[in-house]
Amino acid sequence: MDLYDEEQLTRDYFDFLRFRSISADPEYGGEMRACADWVAKYLEESGLQVEQWETPGYPVVAGKWMGAEGKPTLLLYGHYDVQPVDPLDEWESDPFEPTVRGRDVFARGAQDNKGQILYAMAAIRALMKRDGKLPINVKVCIEGEEESKSVGFSKVLEERKEQLQADYLVAPDFDIPAADRPSIVLGLRGLVALTVDLRGSKHDLHSGMAGGIVYNPNHALVEMLAALRNEEGQVVVPGFYDDVEMLSDEERDLLTLDLGDEQLYREEFEAEANGGEADLPPGESARARPTLEINGISGGYSGPGFKTVIPAQAQAKISCRLVPHQDHAKIRDAIVKFLEERCPKGMEMTVTDHGGAGAMRASVKGPLVDALAKAYEEVFGKECVRTLSGGSVPITQQLARVAGAEAVFMGTGLMSDAIHAPNEHFNLDRQRLGFQVFARFLELL
Amino acid sequence: MDLYDEEQLTRDYFDFLRFRSISADPEYGGEMRACADWVAKYLEESGLQVEQWETPGYPVVAGKWMGAEGKPTLLLYGHYDVQPVDPLDEWESDPFEPTVRGRDVFARGAQDNKGQILYAMAAIRALMKRDGKLPINVKVCIEGEEESKSVGFSKVLEERKEQLQADYLVAPDFDIPAADRPSIVLGLRGLVALTVDLRGSKHDLHSGMAGGIVYNPNHALVEMLAALRNEEGQVVVPGFYDDVEMLSDEERDLLTLDLGDEQLYREEFEAEANGGEADLPPGESARARPTLEINGISGGYSGPGFKTVIPAQAQAKISCRLVPHQDHAKIRDAIVKFLEERCPKGMEMTVTDHGGAGAMRASVKGPLVDALAKAYEEVFGKECVRTLSGGSVPITQQLARVAGAEAVFMGTGLMSDAIHAPNEHFNLDRQRLGFQVFARFLELL
Repeated sequence: MDLYDEEQLTRDYFDFLRFRSISADPEYGGEMRACADWVAKYLEESGLQVEQWETPGYPVVAGKWMGAEGKPTLLLYGHYDVQPVDPLDEWESDPFEPTVRGRDVFARGAQDNKGQILYAMAAIRALMKRDGKLPINVKVCIEGEEESKSVGFSKVLEERKEQLQADYLVAPDFDIPAADRPSIVLGLRGLVALTVDLRGSKHDLHSGMAGGIVYNPNHALVEMLAALRNEEGQVVVPGFYDDVEMLSDEERDLLTLDLGDEQLYREEFEAEANGGEADLPPGESARARPTLEINGISGGYSGPGFKTVIPAQAQAKISCRLVPHQDHAKIRDAIVKFLEERCPKGMEMTVTDHGGAGAMRASVKGPLVDALAKAYEEVFGKECVRTLSGGSVPITQQLARVAGAEAVFMGTGLMSDAIHAPNEHFNLDRQRLGFQVFARFLELL
Repeated sequence: MDLYDEEQLTRDYFDFLRFRSISADPEYGGEMRACADWVAKYLEESGLQVEQWETPGYPVVAGKWMGAEGKPTLLLYGHYDVQPVDPLDEWESDPFEPTVRGRDVFARGAQDNKGQILYAMAAIRALMKRDGKLPINVKVCIEGEEESKSVGFSKVLEERKEQLQADYLVAPDFDIPAADRPSIVLGLRGLVALTVDLRGSKHDLHSGMAGGIVYNPNHALVEMLAALRNEEGQVVVPGFYDDVEMLSDEERDLLTLDLGDEQLYREEFEAEANGGEADLPPGESARARPTLEINGISGGYSGPGFKTVIPAQAQAKISCRLVPHQDHAKIRDAIVKFLEERCPKGMEMTVTDHGGAGAMRASVKGPLVDALAKAYEEVFGKECVRTLSGGSVPITQQLARVAGAEAVFMGTGLMSDAIHAPNEHFNLDRQRLGFQVFARFLELL
């Protein structure tokens, strides 16, 4: 197949990675817009009609090619923003200067999502260049706030409803279980994301003078957070599991949820796979069951040496992953109520809601899933499994609904790519496989 | 009394405050040494014989005047280092540019300890200037790591034993209950200070992929820390209270432990006085009973926005205040054992010991205490109470033992001076009172 040009793709890839497009940090606003311009130019040069949709946050780059009359329309969704990079001192090379070691490219966004969305964009460009047309109609939506709960895009979805209409939606933002084991993701978990702030006094106090008198916000926080789960790893917030639907027998038959993971976790991450619900295999606990995690905790002094302080305030960032049919607002309210009930007298508790969504789960059979599975099987020469993801892309659920599209998720990432972590990387061979699968998928659909 | 020259004292005070002498942060090594030189010069110009004693850390400035043959020797102890200044954005003026608002001087160290040790040094200087001599023999020891557990000074104490010999030891580092209520501190609490680090995986993980599989170090940490105390605010570490000695009837009679504090806490600190043991008045809980506080907690993402991460590591800084006759090493070991027993499988726990000491409590009657009480009563025109402090100055206990001295603590600080916190300040009138008390004390002893 002469479609694939690694030299050109790598040049474009590195240009894309050099933008410090961290949507969570307002400092990088200029780089965000420059990155959006770069994506728009790339799609234009590929032969698509391109617009940038302004939002209350960062712009969405929208492209389309509608020349395949009578054929279905596929909506391709991705994002040009990336996660923050801290702790910076754990990176072995500059997160915004792509560095190749072996066949791996190290950079923030190397996989999530620049490395993956680019192979899909490059496949469209290559088909247009070779054939002057595409086998089906294609719309492209690449937004700038996926890592910040899509605050901008979600606000303009309804007004862009007509432009977004499509038969199918695909988001190349996912992992395969191993480099030679193709897989399609049929479900995502929903999300609740909260910041909880506690304030105990007007300013920091001296632990010798005030210790034994005031209630330390750090103590209040650890007591409130520890109460959220029991010793079996279950969330004890009242109502948390009420609406959880277990897998049907057909889903259990057709889905592969085995992660082969306990050994993988020990070797790859130097971690035990002992954090889930006590009576469930880790693969099911992480994909078909809801979880609650403390993503950040801070309060008082954490610099060098020691400071005998009773801090004025302490903070936790908490998120839940949800499964069908948990309602994200109901779960959020139940957690807030649970924490409020345990907040000591005189301690001020403030909650910031970072948005969220319910879970999403597609049918395990159908033309979209079947075409994508066949593309994977041809390119990899291996059977393609159908599975669920433990992750969340809240915007895709809203987007699929507004677009009227059946949605499925693909990817050639590996769990060891260290997305959201220091030394994120992606492999050039897996980028080529992603390109080939996506190009073949367009032909088969 | 023409001894006191506020204009001159304020000039010297501001020079002293401008040194960024943060012992906990290696970045300020140069400022630390410049500050020691300034103190040495001040004492030399006062007529004392001065040396700087090198230590494994920062130097101790040692001065003496031994011209009062047959008279007792008083050892004056203080420190020229200060606490770190974060959170910097809560300061209303530069912590190292002394700023006067009303009669208050705002700066890091304004009270603890530069503002207080300086009035004692200035009283010595003024007496020498007026009389050409002092009423008793005086030794001065001003060290540079009191806020860093005196790591340097404690190492050289034994080898300086002969030079440190004294009859009495006084440390002007303390509070009075109100601006018109003189008080002498006869006891200090001991200290245990630990940093506990947990590591769960090699690098940060994505909470969508790994949530429900790995054990989140933030969860392990809050569960371990929450287990340390019960709902009555008592520490449940086995053995923690075993050696605690309650106050004797004579101590209860002669000591004033009433803080008048619940109202003070509500108004001054916007905090409830509800953090101590449930069945004890706050004043006794904070001064005559041991405590355990989480001084710092950190793990995962705490920047703007949200990051759905399962952090590789989490950390807590924990300290205890001890009372007679708790052994600090025994308490430290009991806490470490308690935490280790609750550390989940596969989680690596590392403990850093920041040093400590047992508690110290002087006799409630005697020539030293009586002279100091009389000086306070003459200057303030009010009865001087005898009390205990909830704080710790671990080095003073070792110093008193090595010097063979009876020790007592004085001061004109107020709890509202915000020591160890943003906007630390000291009042120029209370600095004058401290000067007058110390000068009169030298005459009466």
